Amino acid sequence: MTNPLQVLFLNCTLKKSPHVSNTDALIHKAQKLYETQGAQTEIIRVVDYNVAFGVSSDEGNGDEWPEILTKIKAADILVMASPIWFGVRGSVLQMVMERLDGTYGEGDSETGQFPLYGKVAGVIVTGNEDGAHNVAAHTLFNLTHLGCTVPPNVDTYWVGPAGPGPSYIEAGGERHLYTNKTTRYMVANTLYMAQLLREHPIPTNLNQLIEEAKKESDPA
Amino acid sequence: MTNPLQVLFLNCTLKKSPHVSNTDALIHKAQKLYETQGAQTEIIRVVDYNVAFGVSSDEGNGDEWPEILTKIKAADILVMASPIWFGVRGSVLQMVMERLDGTYGEGDSETGQFPLYGKVAGVIVTGNEDGAHNVAAHTLFNLTHLGCTVPPNVDTYWVGPAGPGPSYIEAGGERHLYTNKTTRYMVANTLYMAQLLREHPIPTNLNQLIEEAKKESDPA
Amino acid sequence: MTNPLQVLFLNCTLKKSPHVSNTDALIHKAQKLYETQGAQTEIIRVVDYNVAFGVSSDEGNGDEWPEILTKIKAADILVMASPIWFGVRGSVLQMVMERLDGTYGEGDSETGQFPLYGKVAGVIVTGNEDGAHNVAAHTLFNLTHLGCTVPPNVDTYWVGPAGPGPSYIEAGGERHLYTNKTTRYMVANTLYMAQLLREHPIPTNLNQLIEEAKKESDPA
Amino acid sequence: MTNPLQVLFLNCTLKKSPHVSNTDALIHKAQKLYETQGAQTEIIRVVDYNVAFGVSSDEGNGDEWPEILTKIKAADILVMASPIWFGVRGSVLQMVMERLDGTYGEGDSETGQFPLYGKVAGVIVTGNEDGAHNVAAHTLFNLTHLGCTVPPNVDTYWVGPAGPGPSYIEAGGERHLYTNKTTRYMVANTLYMAQLLREHPIPTNLNQLIEEAKKESDPA
Repeated sequence: MTNPLQVLFLNCTLKKSPHVSNTDALIHKAQKLYETQGAQTEIIRVVDYNVAFGVSSDEGNGDEWPEILTKIKAADILVMASPIWFGVRGSVLQMVMERLDGTYGEGDSETGQFPLYGKVAGVIVTGNEDGAHNVAAHTLFNLTHLGCTVPPNVDTYWVGPAGPGPSYIEAGGERHLYTNKTTRYMVANTLYMAQLLREHPIPTNLNQLIEEAKKESDPA
Repeated sequence: MTNPLQVLFLNCTLKKSPHVSNTDALIHKAQKLYETQGAQTEIIRVVDYNVAFGVSSDEGNGDEWPEILTKIKAADILVMASPIWFGVRGSVLQMVMERLDGTYGEGDSETGQFPLYGKVAGVIVTGNEDGAHNVAAHTLFNLTHLGCTVPPNVDTYWVGPAGPGPSYIEAGGERHLYTNKTTRYMVANTLYMAQLLREHPIPTNLNQLIEEAKKESDPA
Repeated sequence: MTNPLQVLFLNCTLKKSPHVSNTDALIHKAQKLYETQGAQTEIIRVVDYNVAFGVSSDEGNGDEWPEILTKIKAADILVMASPIWFGVRGSVLQMVMERLDGTYGEGDSETGQFPLYGKVAGVIVTGNEDGAHNVAAHTLFNLTHLGCTVPPNVDTYWVGPAGPGPSYIEAGGERHLYTNKTTRYMVANTLYMAQLLREHPIPTNLNQLIEEAKKESDPA
Repeated sequence: MTNPLQVLFLNCTLKKSPHVSNTDALIHKAQKLYETQGAQTEIIRVVDYNVAFGVSSDEGNGDEWPEILTKIKAADILVMASPIWFGVRGSVLQMVMERLDGTYGEGDSETGQFPLYGKVAGVIVTGNEDGAHNVAAHTLFNLTHLGCTVPPNVDTYWVGPAGPGPSYIEAGGERHLYTNKTTRYMVANTLYMAQLLREHPIPTNLNQLIEEAKKESDPA
């Protein structure tokens, strides 16, 4: 691969570095596999940046989201990684999704395609228990709205049984077959799809489709 | 296109034919667009079949799911269409998803790929109000677990404002710009991806990845 | 207690009697606790009845929902019990919720209160893995819309760790402390609230509130 | 009422004061109704405080959550108010829920009841479109886990039809009958239940129930 695929992990743990992040432990498993396949990777721990609440691409006043967004736009594969809290995705991942709302307004002038068009998404979830499907479903769906493609089996997660309990590292989740298997599925399928879309970009002209839709619609 | 792409809509309305289905009205919009692009389409209204509750591919006793499943397996593009009830997907779509659980056990003997691998998914949702994101997120996510690929912007929905109110047809939803626009996005992107995957099938060998995962895992 | 509280469990397993239901096993734990406290209980396995898809209280053609609905209306405490499938509530529980939609139209002529007003809700969830929060959240919320009150800690569930695996009975879930603890919370709090509401019924006149709301609203 | 009921609204808008908040507009409607009924109210706009990400009751370093938590503990009725973003609750409300996780560890030494036991919850949701059920369901459910009681019909929301569009204020949502009606339901039912629980507090001894559960459980 002369121009390696770029994989960006956004670790949406609530804990700043250097606190141990269970989500980070699972990210590292995936990272190693991606690198073995020749991809280049980077991990961003979002809370280590000064990211403002908001829905634009730059909220000003020292907002460091633009720095993260630049890396998102340069990636081929975007892997959102989050803990579960109260059965749903953590506040940091939710904040990240809200900030990506700003990209809808940055569509290509000709095709209208948003900046995330052509990228491939995956998701990593860790939690003591219950909620991974909810986190993965909403996160991957939101990313398709933003332009990403979701190949099969690109979520990997670890959760323990019902109720509070040990987290991924403490519980030995690193030896959980289901999680180790699905991490490999994610890596293989995101890499394949990212290469495919690099060679065969989605040609859809959203602007043109809007014009066609207007012909049979009331004014918005 | 010498071998046209096959699009299968599963209309998961609660109402048997010939009752008017709002979901059907939106399906027809998409169907027309698919056919204009040269695809072949079929609509199945699930409640017109005798489908049993269960999680296998054939529950016996006159179960007509096998007939539907055969068509699902022959399709390139699978569009799940459902009303919203109580903020989530209707019981018929949920029943359909449960029946698809049976396909996990029908993986290819060599690659382990499930029967829905290589297919492309889309979703259509109608409701008086609120709940479309929830229906689309869980449904598309579940379909990726089963093997489908989800390109960007392949959900289209119509809902009215907060509270009970008129449905799609009665409310003139057929002239709602957002819905008409996203229907076109769905058609364009599912067609492009289906053709791409037909020409470049996902090569991932799930069985081999499981073997690799076992090396670093405790027995399941 | 001269007039014992009535507890109705709706077992929404996909499997007809006499198939073993994991959900049933957890229901029985709760049932025993309720009876020890002097309540009267009944368990209905919904799939053993001929319940039609729909959103009215009687879909005709041999629909047996009216028989179940009569028992729901007679109960003080309503416990919905469901397996998880694909991360969300099973189709049978969804079907049950849809049928309860019909009760919105059966409000008291004076107060407008729906038939489920004054009842207390709880929920029991079982699954191999992940999804219990989602099932409980939507189900309890839907029941508050229908008129039920939800006291604290009235969900109890058992799920195993990430991925497919043994179910409640096979996994020895009956000895899982978190589940056994929360089952007791549910029993205690639903009983207390049901007795309280029996003695102090919610007096809210919904009809009157609608009239007040109309004064500051556009016509619906 | 010699000792008026205390109502606390947490406005979880992403926008700091003095930016206009649509959620705030709907809060004010409810506030006025509560005050007409003799309750005392306070509105906290969470982003105006320096609240840290985390799951404890005090994250240190200038964390202003303890100030908010003190007010939460003093309230009888807790109304969470949030915008919808990407179909789910906004990041600020999610952050608030995460911070409430810290209260699980502050149970009463005798009964084990968490600090939110005995409080009554309501929820207010605003969004351009779709997602209110999801926000309300998870938020009310989470609050029952923390100790709150949820009476019937204590969610009120405003959303417009499918797709981006004007917000509550701009769209004239203040004259939407469904929202005005359900706001009144929320006010009436939370007030009734709060007074009832003040006079008849939930007596459940969680510690004792845990001890009983341990007898039939494996060690956690």
